[in-house]
Amino acid sequence: MNTLKEYGKITEDRLLKIIPELPKNAFEIGRMPALLSESMRYSLLAGGKRLRPAMLLASCEMLGGDVSLALDFACAIEMIHTYSLIHDDLPGMDDDDMRRGKPTNHVVFGVGQAILAGDGLLNMAFEVMLQKALTAGSDMEKCVLAANEIARAAGVTGMIAGQCADLYQEGRADGTEEMLRYIHEGKTMAMFVGAMRAGAFLAGADEQALHAITEYARAFGLLFQASDDVLDITADPALFGHSVGKDERDGKLTAVSVLTLEGAKARVEALLQEAVDALKDFGAQADFFRSLADAVAHRDH
Amino acid sequence: MNTLKEYGKITEDRLLKIIPELPKNAFEIGRMPALLSESMRYSLLAGGKRLRPAMLLASCEMLGGDVSLALDFACAIEMIHTYSLIHDDLPGMDDDDMRRGKPTNHVVFGVGQAILAGDGLLNMAFEVMLQKALTAGSDMEKCVLAANEIARAAGVTGMIAGQCADLYQEGRADGTEEMLRYIHEGKTMAMFVGAMRAGAFLAGADEQALHAITEYARAFGLLFQASDDVLDITADPALFGHSVGKDERDGKLTAVSVLTLEGAKARVEALLQEAVDALKDFGAQADFFRSLADAVAHRDH
Repeated sequence: MNTLKEYGKITEDRLLKIIPELPKNAFEIGRMPALLSESMRYSLLAGGKRLRPAMLLASCEMLGGDVSLALDFACAIEMIHTYSLIHDDLPGMDDDDMRRGKPTNHVVFGVGQAILAGDGLLNMAFEVMLQKALTAGSDMEKCVLAANEIARAAGVTGMIAGQCADLYQEGRADGTEEMLRYIHEGKTMAMFVGAMRAGAFLAGADEQALHAITEYARAFGLLFQASDDVLDITADPALFGHSVGKDERDGKLTAVSVLTLEGAKARVEALLQEAVDALKDFGAQADFFRSLADAVAHRDH
Repeated sequence: MNTLKEYGKITEDRLLKIIPELPKNAFEIGRMPALLSESMRYSLLAGGKRLRPAMLLASCEMLGGDVSLALDFACAIEMIHTYSLIHDDLPGMDDDDMRRGKPTNHVVFGVGQAILAGDGLLNMAFEVMLQKALTAGSDMEKCVLAANEIARAAGVTGMIAGQCADLYQEGRADGTEEMLRYIHEGKTMAMFVGAMRAGAFLAGADEQALHAITEYARAFGLLFQASDDVLDITADPALFGHSVGKDERDGKLTAVSVLTLEGAKARVEALLQEAVDALKDFGAQADFFRSLADAVAHRDH
């Protein structure tokens, strides 16, 4: 088992090989446009923590699988996460000009090219997984099972469902706890579940292990979003006076807007306990996931 | 072998089952949002000729394969084609308000939801193909090979590459024949090649057959785009006086702008001959493709 940082590093190194830097402005038959490689790399290298790929790799290793089989799936899930951020930031969606202190993709490359960079990353995620399946010999079925999990998590009953509901709900006054659950399970939880289940399938995990890591990933995903909603309020008190965060100013439904700040904080602690409990049958090899959940619950940025 | 219309009908029937109509405004945990189903169906059912799925199915049948194995791949390629139209029509891309006499997706559902409808269709194409692979038993490898062909055709060295180059080139005065080739091979040809090769892989075709249908599909794809560029000029002479079409008014590089109208017409005929020649070793079972190429070359709308 590696640390979060180490898993992140091997994912990033592989991503840079999959999407090479090309001579400026080249459009060469049979190769991707240099412009597209540049815009996809711009967002892929914008300082993500590689949480989802690390969790896929750690899940695979914890259950006895091999990082060399799983690495391209880790890259695929990071490509999908990155495409979702590029499209989320577009005018017509959240319309954000900055992300992690850098201008967003469409500010640098224009709206049209940003749409294509997102489309390209989503499509390439599947190209990479299918290629791996075709060269994996007797592990082909494991690869197809993993790709299928990731596809479902990213899709219209997963991440895209959450984004659709989020956008629909924006600015409406009728937000319910049920709608909040629909949004958070889709937008945030689904990809964590997909990452860990993909890792488990690549390890050839049994039903019991698959069930346990799924329960962990569900609790972790909801915990991640709830703590994000809390941070949105508390991280910059000087600016917002502890009362209203960016998502709330945007008219979004959040854990805080539905549960109050104290309620949301209590929910974070309850979910942390759920996440830890889900892995009770695993020994020290689950420490990666225990400390990760704890760190996310108690982060201050 | 069926007719184009019959292949289109079975594809459409299956698409409607894959994406069901849902109760208005429902967001139900575990199901896709009704809004997304509505917006995806809106564009899927906007009157396409189902050319790519029909060619996938016909290629599979011509080479001895089974439509029941290939049908979900035909649906996947139509979903990908439809997503590309939704995203192409967006502001920041071609910014079109109408397509085939109907308001475009973003005019009806808003830009954000249209982006998600496109993302959803692309993602779902892979969900459908992977699901089929997992339930195909000993045909799993054929399915993965077919999905891989479609992924490559739709991706950053295929369709998306062409769209990127098209957008980059728009309004620039320095269009070369090489750039025109890059755009047409990517934007239009790649998906026809992907469709027919996917059909061939699903039929378990040998190298020689694969080579022949690839040559046909390449010629057909370029023929389709060149005849489209010609039609853009000639289809509505009352309005445009035979001199300038929509793409040219948009500052796009077309077969006509590079080769002149007469040159483009000659190119259509040469490509038709190439397409027919590619299938010379096939008997009557290739008639579907011979008459299709002829019909596209000589269409007047």
